Amino acid sequence: MNRSLSLDLTKKIGEEVLLKGWVERVRSHGKIAFFDLRDMSETVQIAAFDDLALKVAGLGVQDVVEVEGLVKAREERYINKEVPTGSIEVELKSLKVIVKSQEMPFDMGGKDLDLQLPTLLDYRALTLRHSKVREIFLIQSALLSGFRKAAESLSCVELSVPTIAASATEGGAEVFDINYYGHRAYLTQSPQLYKQMMIPVFERVFTISHAYRAEPSVTTRHLSESTQMDCEFGFVDFQMLLDLLEEVVIKMLKEVEATCGDILKARGVEKLLLGKTPRLTLRESQKIIYKETGRDNRKEKDLTPQDEIDICEWAKKNHNSDLVTITHFPTAKRAFYTMPDPNDPEYSLSYDVLFRGVEISSGSQRISDYNELVQTIKNRGMNPKNFELYLQAFKYGMPPEGGFSFGLERMTMHILNLANVREASLFPRDMERVDERFSQIEEKEV
Amino acid sequence: MNRSLSLDLTKKIGEEVLLKGWVERVRSHGKIAFFDLRDMSETVQIAAFDDLALKVAGLGVQDVVEVEGLVKAREERYINKEVPTGSIEVELKSLKVIVKSQEMPFDMGGKDLDLQLPTLLDYRALTLRHSKVREIFLIQSALLSGFRKAAESLSCVELSVPTIAASATEGGAEVFDINYYGHRAYLTQSPQLYKQMMIPVFERVFTISHAYRAEPSVTTRHLSESTQMDCEFGFVDFQMLLDLLEEVVIKMLKEVEATCGDILKARGVEKLLLGKTPRLTLRESQKIIYKETGRDNRKEKDLTPQDEIDICEWAKKNHNSDLVTITHFPTAKRAFYTMPDPNDPEYSLSYDVLFRGVEISSGSQRISDYNELVQTIKNRGMNPKNFELYLQAFKYGMPPEGGFSFGLERMTMHILNLANVREASLFPRDMERVDERFSQIEEKEV
Repeated sequence: MNRSLSLDLTKKIGEEVLLKGWVERVRSHGKIAFFDLRDMSETVQIAAFDDLALKVAGLGVQDVVEVEGLVKAREERYINKEVPTGSIEVELKSLKVIVKSQEMPFDMGGKDLDLQLPTLLDYRALTLRHSKVREIFLIQSALLSGFRKAAESLSCVELSVPTIAASATEGGAEVFDINYYGHRAYLTQSPQLYKQMMIPVFERVFTISHAYRAEPSVTTRHLSESTQMDCEFGFVDFQMLLDLLEEVVIKMLKEVEATCGDILKARGVEKLLLGKTPRLTLRESQKIIYKETGRDNRKEKDLTPQDEIDICEWAKKNHNSDLVTITHFPTAKRAFYTMPDPNDPEYSLSYDVLFRGVEISSGSQRISDYNELVQTIKNRGMNPKNFELYLQAFKYGMPPEGGFSFGLERMTMHILNLANVREASLFPRDMERVDERFSQIEEKEV
Repeated sequence: MNRSLSLDLTKKIGEEVLLKGWVERVRSHGKIAFFDLRDMSETVQIAAFDDLALKVAGLGVQDVVEVEGLVKAREERYINKEVPTGSIEVELKSLKVIVKSQEMPFDMGGKDLDLQLPTLLDYRALTLRHSKVREIFLIQSALLSGFRKAAESLSCVELSVPTIAASATEGGAEVFDINYYGHRAYLTQSPQLYKQMMIPVFERVFTISHAYRAEPSVTTRHLSESTQMDCEFGFVDFQMLLDLLEEVVIKMLKEVEATCGDILKARGVEKLLLGKTPRLTLRESQKIIYKETGRDNRKEKDLTPQDEIDICEWAKKNHNSDLVTITHFPTAKRAFYTMPDPNDPEYSLSYDVLFRGVEISSGSQRISDYNELVQTIKNRGMNPKNFELYLQAFKYGMPPEGGFSFGLERMTMHILNLANVREASLFPRDMERVDERFSQIEEKEV
């Protein structure tokens, strides 16, 4: 008999099927017993009677089993509308335990997994299997897929760019250094410089890569290693870039809604509002916030976290949009390659996209003139010699260009309202942990 | 006027168009001049007369220009069948230089780019623009896309797994170490252990990630940082795995042929032969080689490079296939997680796929039993304590599973018959170079 998947069983009522998967929970009532079997597609209820019920009572959570059984429609009053397989169950005919699991260190059978973050991560290989954890990464996979489809539809060519660099390219001290054949090298903070160098090669590029930040503090929002989705476009001006950016964000969110709508709904995530994205300069947004709330941040160089919340509320109310694009941040607050606004160089042709109160993307028009770029690097106290290959791309004909990037884990976190970005990373890296906590590793070494 | 792309011009004969791109080469004959304009889609010939011819004569290679002109069909005798735009040319009406390039350090205008490897890499931001270099990375992008499509069609969920690890996971000394907040950590040699841990979460997974190997030697085949495409499947046996593997390889190669057939043809790459892939054990293949060539390697623990060439010749001749799958390598020669063949544990349920004389993929059925895995780690002289999180996945119900991986740069290299794998990496990392050669970097520091 060929293996069936749980999700397909509603179409197989009256048929004998072979299932393989993991035991999720067991409910034994003497001569009748039930268990939930989970496979790659879904969870389904298995019902057992008499001798088989005794055998089921002996099952442990996470045992790997092979089941033969008869698919039956449930009586109306037993239908569970919360799961896609809730209208059927499988009457057990034979049961084989392929692999016996060890005892659970905590309850994995509940609808939620009620664990503190350190335990959630100490047992990551186990806790990822819980449906409430697992589904976070289905959302993440949809974001990756949505990003890629959007980039490909805009004729971007995919790149694989390196993560080992000879200097701390974007400046700043927060870099990890590597012993590279006796030389000192660094892990890149972003694929930024490489994607720009590829503009004269392909004009439109995208890359999904890892970004490394040696943040010397533990917050709910920072990871030492994260996944970044980047686009870069040649022959574009600032307005075209904003159009492209908003097109990509909206496509990504729509892909998540199309493929993971059930998950969003079950987790109580509000339906996404994707009306035309309003665009405001930083100063315009601060004026609106002042008008709406009376809070006067009109001279601040950036939005505060509360500002971000308030301007998103305004966009939702007035533009039916969960997104709002903020432009023209002060030039001094953005990375060196950001182009100052020719009409007012104190401000830059930069942008952030806010989603439901937080920033999920940022980018800018770039400085594309070689001499201006060299001068800017010097003005920022950096040495152009450390940017030799990067500058080469500008020496030999760089058109007007710009781009943007998204943080995968942060975006996942905010779509699902997770409390901590670590929950949105399969195996999060931070100051205290690389899989295991360093305190544990050191204990073992003693 | 909206911008047109070169590749679309054959459909616009008689129309006035606006083009933007780079000057590839200039041919001036006084009152008549020509130049080739390259944009993201293709290269097209621009013809100029009189005053405009003088202006064209002043253009430099890699200048970024904006052109208005009239699309004209070429006379029969001037048609160039080697390029997709060879049946038309654009008569120049107005020309604007957007960005002036600096002088070329070498000739970029030839059909081939005749440079030694160090120069090719020292000027990487420039040399990547040459069509013969650029198209290598279109093939690479097609391989990425083909891999992903194949994995998605097999219901694999995409993962983003970390590259920073607490121990040198697969054993061996060739790892880079990182200063990680004062602790020592390592760059992963592969995503292997993480993708296996995800089997009980999603059953079928794929990941595209970077692999780091501190190879202390300079060869034509090794990179210190490379791109790896990985799949892993739960509830599979060895035969199913071989089926899955061959399905994925063939889909990848077909994607390359479908999207980049012109490039393959222009480079003289032979048409791919993708008949049913023959499968041989190592010992069977050695017997065939002995019979075909008289060379007796029947007791060797692996195929030699010449063996790989010869068995591929045999597969081509006898099975109309550029691929051949070799199985059952000696257990001691494969990574610790490889499952020994239950019928003959000296050999393993492992496989390599050879393509036109070289290995492009390898993988295996894995040891899925917790106790056997712990014992194997000990037998190999490693400490199970360094594999705590990995082993956790096996403690709590790991089904039979296996998988495989492809090296992106190696596969690109072999499809195109490149002499050196560095040519198939945008910005290759090796012992001597991270963008710039270390000798150059050190000179500057003095």
